[in-house]
Order: sequence, then C-alpha cells, then structure tokens
Amino acid sequence: MNAPASADVLARIADTLESRRPRNGGDPASSYVAKLLSRGPDAFLKKIGEEATELVMAAKDGVPERIVSETADLWFHCLVALTHYNLRPEDVLAELGRREGLSGLVEKASRPAS
Amino acid sequence: MNAPASADVLARIADTLESRRPRNGGDPASSYVAKLLSRGPDAFLKKIGEEATELVMAAKDGVPERIVSETADLWFHCLVALTHYNLRPEDVLAELGRREGLSGLVEKASRPAS
Amino acid sequence: MNAPASADVLARIADTLESRRPRNGGDPASSYVAKLLSRGPDAFLKKIGEEATELVMAAKDGVPERIVSETADLWFHCLVALTHYNLRPEDVLAELGRREGLSGLVEKASRPAS
Amino acid sequence: MNAPASADVLARIADTLESRRPRNGGDPASSYVAKLLSRGPDAFLKKIGEEATELVMAAKDGVPERIVSETADLWFHCLVALTHYNLRPEDVLAELGRREGLSGLVEKASRPAS
Repeated sequence: MNAPASADVLARIADTLESRRPRNGGDPASSYVAKLLSRGPDAFLKKIGEEATELVMAAKDGVPERIVSETADLWFHCLVALTHYNLRPEDVLAELGRREGLSGLVEKASRPAS
Repeated sequence: MNAPASADVLARIADTLESRRPRNGGDPASSYVAKLLSRGPDAFLKKIGEEATELVMAAKDGVPERIVSETADLWFHCLVALTHYNLRPEDVLAELGRREGLSGLVEKASRPAS
Repeated sequence: MNAPASADVLARIADTLESRRPRNGGDPASSYVAKLLSRGPDAFLKKIGEEATELVMAAKDGVPERIVSETADLWFHCLVALTHYNLRPEDVLAELGRREGLSGLVEKASRPAS
Repeated sequence: MNAPASADVLARIADTLESRRPRNGGDPASSYVAKLLSRGPDAFLKKIGEEATELVMAAKDGVPERIVSETADLWFHCLVALTHYNLRPEDVLAELGRREGLSGLVEKASRPAS
C-alpha cells in the first residue's frame, strides 16, 4: 500500500461516517455507525475504552494480526467520535505533524554546530 | 493540509519511532520514546489506557482542541506500540481500507438492481 | 447498612462467583458469570476496561446514582477476575488495610514528639 | 483476616480520604490524595483508566501478587472518586448487596417447588 492512498482511507472513512449521522439521514436500523451516533457520546466513547483494552490484551498476547485489527477498531471508533464533534482525521494528523515538526526543530537545535 | 501529506505524517512518525528503538541506538536518557520502548510493553500499553481515558474525558467536556490533542496522544502511543511489535501504521490503514472496501461491497450488493 | 454486613457482601458474592466456575458446575447457558468465566480472561478483562470507562463518564456527568452503579459494575467484574485467578476480595482488602496501616505509621512517625 | 474487619478497611480509608479533601484542610503539598482531590475529577478519573489497564496487564501476566496489588490500586482510586462526589464505599456495597439479593430471589423463584 502506498502512502498517499493511506490518508485517503482515513478521509474516505470520515466521509462515510459523516453520511451516517442522524442529521444526514443515517439509519440506526440498518447501520452500526448510525446507531452509535444516534445514541450519543456515551455509546461510542465506551467503545473507545473497550477497544483500547482489547488492543492492550492483543499486545500482551503478541499476536500481530490481532494488534493490527484492534488498533484499527480503536482508530475507527475515534473517527466516529471525531465525526460527532465535527472534527476530521486531518485535524489529528495535522496535530501529529505539528508535533513532529517541533520535535525535528528541537533535534536540529540540539545538534552541535559543524 | 492535503491528503497525501497526511499519510506521510504517520509514516514519518513511524520512521522516527523506529530510530528510537534501543536496538537502533535510541537513548532512553534523552528521548521519551526511547525510554518507553526500552521499558517494554507495559510502559506504553499503560499509556494507551490512560490516553483513551483522557480522550473520553475531553469528549465529555466537548472541547474540540482537547479532543484533537488527546486523539493525537492516543494514536501516537498506538504508533509506539506498533513499532515495538514490528508493525506499521500502513498495516492499520490497510486493514481499515479493507473493511471499508468490504463495507462498500455490501452496500453495492444491497442496492436494488437498476 | 452496617459495616460488618458490607464485608459479608463481597465475600458472599465471591462465594457465588466461585460456584459459577465451569469446574464447579457453572452453566454458561443460564448464568452470565458462568459464561464470562468459561470464555476465559479476555472476556471479563475487557469488561473491566469497559466498566472503568463507564464509571469515568458517569463521574463526568456527576450523577450520584450512576457513579455508584458503575463502581458496583466495575468492582463486580474485578471480583469475577479474582475468582478466575483463585484470589479473594479479602486479599484486596488486606492489601488496602496493609497500606493504610503503613500510611498510619508514616503519619505517626512524622508527628513531632510531644 | 476476618470479614467484619474488611468492611472497616473500606470505611476507614473513606474516612481518611474525606479528611484529605481541600475543604477539610487536606494539604496538596504533603498528601498524594489531597493533591489528586485538589486538582479535580480529571486527575483521579484518569487514574481509574490507568489502573484498570494495569490490572488487565497484571491479569494477562497471571501474577497473583500484582493482580491483588493492581485491584487495590483501582479500588483505592474509585474510593477517591467516591469521596469527591460525596459518596461512600457503603453505597457501592449496598448496591452490590441489593443486586445479590435480587439474584438470590431469582434463584429461589426458579427452584422447583419441593
């Protein structure tokens, strides 16, 4: 999988989640996400706690496939929460990028002058 | 922020984390990540539980900046865990993409024939 | 509720949980606890992460009845875990008492001599 | 350890925690609990998420001493939260007892008449 396609995945999922919001016609009867979003924050926030715990257990077991799968579950429910609060994965990636940039600056600043 | 750059962020952070592993010369004395990775799984897995809880609290408070910041913290520590287990963010994005594709297929299959 | 009865509650629940273990004839088909215990650690440990998150959310909402109810849920699933590992609530209470005693000693030691 | 002393432990700890509240003169500079309580809910609620994760990891490792110790940590921070919300461990034990009583009634009701 090449990198550009990856960001598309998060953005595409966010688009799909947005379309599942009750106000956008998401149907709780036919869509898991629409049901989560219609129930309100506690429903999907509880899943974040649950999926974080499942990731921790998968990691303790050291099974790569389960670690990837549980991380995907956790990130997915984070995306559901972001949708509810009118936020986007791009916001999170920008924050991570900003920190990484700062970190790079710190590293550069601490390099001895040549 | 445009989409292609976003995936680069996750990949670039993963590259940086990889360089912080003890076996790659990461120095626990000068790097937070190198310290986490040198302490072993419980150190960073505990952070996943902690950051998940902080995200839930930020969401309950409904403060967008904190929701973004705590999600970034949570994803960052997931990236640390992935590094330890020789996994990549691309693996998680591929899994999310795979599910989204399946979901798309399901939707297509359930569409009435035109 | 008077105090002696309280400890009895934890001990009585632990006794009941013990009787629900598969090896003691607990029937997963008719008992929630027997089902949890028969599925193995991940089933009830996941509940600990989930109930902890629900307690945090109830606390953020500040609704006393829900805080009590979610704490009861969390402690109950801890008791299920203790059962699986052949431990008792009395072990946890003894540890808490030991710490409290140590704390008392510390306080005494730090008092100025009269 | 005999049972009556156990409930005393929870009640005694709750009494001590109550005395550590800022409004009761608890000093954040000298007491861990006073510091937690003075910082407000997020400080001790975060600990509940963290200690729940540590209990899950100790359980996955199957080390009895750590399971007991982490359960004690988790319950202790629940007691801190109860204190902040003017609740008591007796409230939680009463709720657990009420459920156990209901459960007992259900069992009795389902017994075949002799």
